[in-house]
Amino acid sequence: MSILLANRLERIETSAIRELFKVLGQPGIISFAGGFPDSALFDVEGIEKASQAVFKDQASLALQYGATEGYPLLREALVTWMNQKSTALSLEMQDIIVTTGSQQALDLLGKVLINEGDQGLVEGPTFLAAIQCFKLYGAQLSSVPVDEKGVQVDELEKSIIEKKPRFIYLIPTFGNPSGLTLSLERRLRILELARQYQVWVIEDDPYGDLYFDQAPPDSLLALSDQVPGSRQWLIHCGSLSKILSPGLRVGWMIAPEAILSKAVMCKQFSDAHTSTLAQAIAATYLQSGRMSMGLEKVRAVYAKRAHTMASALKEHLGDELSFSMPQGGLFIWAYLQKLNGNEWAKKAIEHQVAFVPGQPFFAEKADVKTMRLSFATVGEEQIVEGVKRLALAKKALLSNT
Amino acid sequence: MSILLANRLERIETSAIRELFKVLGQPGIISFAGGFPDSALFDVEGIEKASQAVFKDQASLALQYGATEGYPLLREALVTWMNQKSTALSLEMQDIIVTTGSQQALDLLGKVLINEGDQGLVEGPTFLAAIQCFKLYGAQLSSVPVDEKGVQVDELEKSIIEKKPRFIYLIPTFGNPSGLTLSLERRLRILELARQYQVWVIEDDPYGDLYFDQAPPDSLLALSDQVPGSRQWLIHCGSLSKILSPGLRVGWMIAPEAILSKAVMCKQFSDAHTSTLAQAIAATYLQSGRMSMGLEKVRAVYAKRAHTMASALKEHLGDELSFSMPQGGLFIWAYLQKLNGNEWAKKAIEHQVAFVPGQPFFAEKADVKTMRLSFATVGEEQIVEGVKRLALAKKALLSNT
Repeated sequence: MSILLANRLERIETSAIRELFKVLGQPGIISFAGGFPDSALFDVEGIEKASQAVFKDQASLALQYGATEGYPLLREALVTWMNQKSTALSLEMQDIIVTTGSQQALDLLGKVLINEGDQGLVEGPTFLAAIQCFKLYGAQLSSVPVDEKGVQVDELEKSIIEKKPRFIYLIPTFGNPSGLTLSLERRLRILELARQYQVWVIEDDPYGDLYFDQAPPDSLLALSDQVPGSRQWLIHCGSLSKILSPGLRVGWMIAPEAILSKAVMCKQFSDAHTSTLAQAIAATYLQSGRMSMGLEKVRAVYAKRAHTMASALKEHLGDELSFSMPQGGLFIWAYLQKLNGNEWAKKAIEHQVAFVPGQPFFAEKADVKTMRLSFATVGEEQIVEGVKRLALAKKALLSNT
Repeated sequence: MSILLANRLERIETSAIRELFKVLGQPGIISFAGGFPDSALFDVEGIEKASQAVFKDQASLALQYGATEGYPLLREALVTWMNQKSTALSLEMQDIIVTTGSQQALDLLGKVLINEGDQGLVEGPTFLAAIQCFKLYGAQLSSVPVDEKGVQVDELEKSIIEKKPRFIYLIPTFGNPSGLTLSLERRLRILELARQYQVWVIEDDPYGDLYFDQAPPDSLLALSDQVPGSRQWLIHCGSLSKILSPGLRVGWMIAPEAILSKAVMCKQFSDAHTSTLAQAIAATYLQSGRMSMGLEKVRAVYAKRAHTMASALKEHLGDELSFSMPQGGLFIWAYLQKLNGNEWAKKAIEHQVAFVPGQPFFAEKADVKTMRLSFATVGEEQIVEGVKRLALAKKALLSNT
């Protein structure tokens, strides 16, 4: 039998990460490999209460088909919440649509923006599933290097001039996998570049609320008022996955009307709409005002874990790796001295500890001497133990060679 | 500002139906235009109980990220349920993946199967959102005519030979919009054709459980054992939307491993996975055994409404329209004598009654003298009143011209 499949599938691959993830369930493994929040920190009580209220007050609406744009109560609640967080914002309901996780926002942007062969710019490193998603739509991706202040804007401008990209995809705040925060100055510069070169800027912001000590610079969205003409080139994606619950699969997109209307059309044929029940629960939760309480708790726990991991890395692996201390989010991204991240990751599994090697996070020119460590789901003692195991794996690897 | 959008958007259009749907919320309008189940028949109590059990027993799993393939408990529950319904089936968990409504199954099939310019065959008429979805991926669609026994298989074979399609998309049981049931003989013939011509057959089956008196012929999936070699060309899509709740957005796809593995890869970059919470609730509901009870109630109500509508149509509009009496599902599809469906639909709104004209349901060679009427969400008295209003609108239209 010949299997007739579409050519676009040849552009992507099931990632090495997926194979890695299969062993993570094994007992005894300490995993720094995840990209998810700690389920022990979920506000289960609050979500359950919201769910009960939905069944009591709006069951038939919440169980029926809904508008493709999103459940009106949720769009309102999201807009209220976004506006509360930043005085620079005055969003209205029509500025936002709900997506099935922010992953779907990327898929819809693929449909709306990308022709086969279109150029796109991403950070090196960037979110793996964004790379694959855009490639599936035929985008040619180029990487722009990062430093401790985030993506390098002079390099970005050079690439814009050279590649004439249709879009730039960025995670400016506590990037995945980089953990970096783009400086305020660079944010403003990027908005200038968007306007000047008429290129779409996609701001993916799932982590911005997970800051440790002080709030990060305003989002590109909130800053766009300061750069006249930039807002019409800006697409902002958000998500409840990292701050409330990934299982709800509630994300959103804020963009100019021309993009939103086409994204809604495409969403109609992608999944009709996001689960109305999940949306109604999310709306009711946001209205309950519990979010800020929950976020305070989560921030404190993640901050402590991040600092514990950073200290342990310095103590046990200070000669092998260097990293910028993240100011929020879930990840530490490290550059290696002698080791290859792929080889270390394999050896680490033998020592009952897991992380994701850096290579797959590059759309091009992969730096194999990199790694991503998540501190979010591991308790502090286990973090120290895991880092010690990493050091043992390193030792084993170096004595082998 | 020039808006740079992808070329694929030019292939589809926001449907006339969407414009129509905007007026449906107006008070006083009797709507036969919907394509959804009656929310008054939802088993709210049962779904609420399932939800409570999920929060009690599996909250942290149900609120966390989950496998792209689907929540294991749901895949098991779906397989059990499918196998119970047909003794010809012996599905296992790896044969099925969960999708965000069956609409997402179509989107994933677009990604997995369709290259730009590929030929596809659909029924004339067929599901509007399938036409648009496949076109978005560049498919060239041809229509195969239907009669009272469903799609005409001799015509189908001719089109296969002529068009060399990559896929055939069918709703064999209580089709949308046709309401038709494909005969057993034709089902077997289509399985033969799939094998003989090596063409993918997509069986979309959201309505099969909504039969009025007796169960319809087995699905193509259940029949495929009788036609050796056909199963490897068969893709079956199902959904809980019409039989439990659309708001959960839980659908599924059963297909050969080569298709499922690629669909999972594409789903990873489409929405990562379907709402875990919705999946856990659906799984718990299916395990509760309430589904068959709920279905009996729904079948009886829809059957009554269908018969009421059919009688009223014959009484008040017998000279204008002809239709095959549906044996299940949500729709009556009618062929008109003198009227144009588009014009009648507009005039009908003025008379406070709505339906969907038939034209948009054709991928090509649209028959404008057609209409779709849904009886599912309107009580019997209102059905009679609505049909009377249709007759008045017809009269007004004919006296105008």
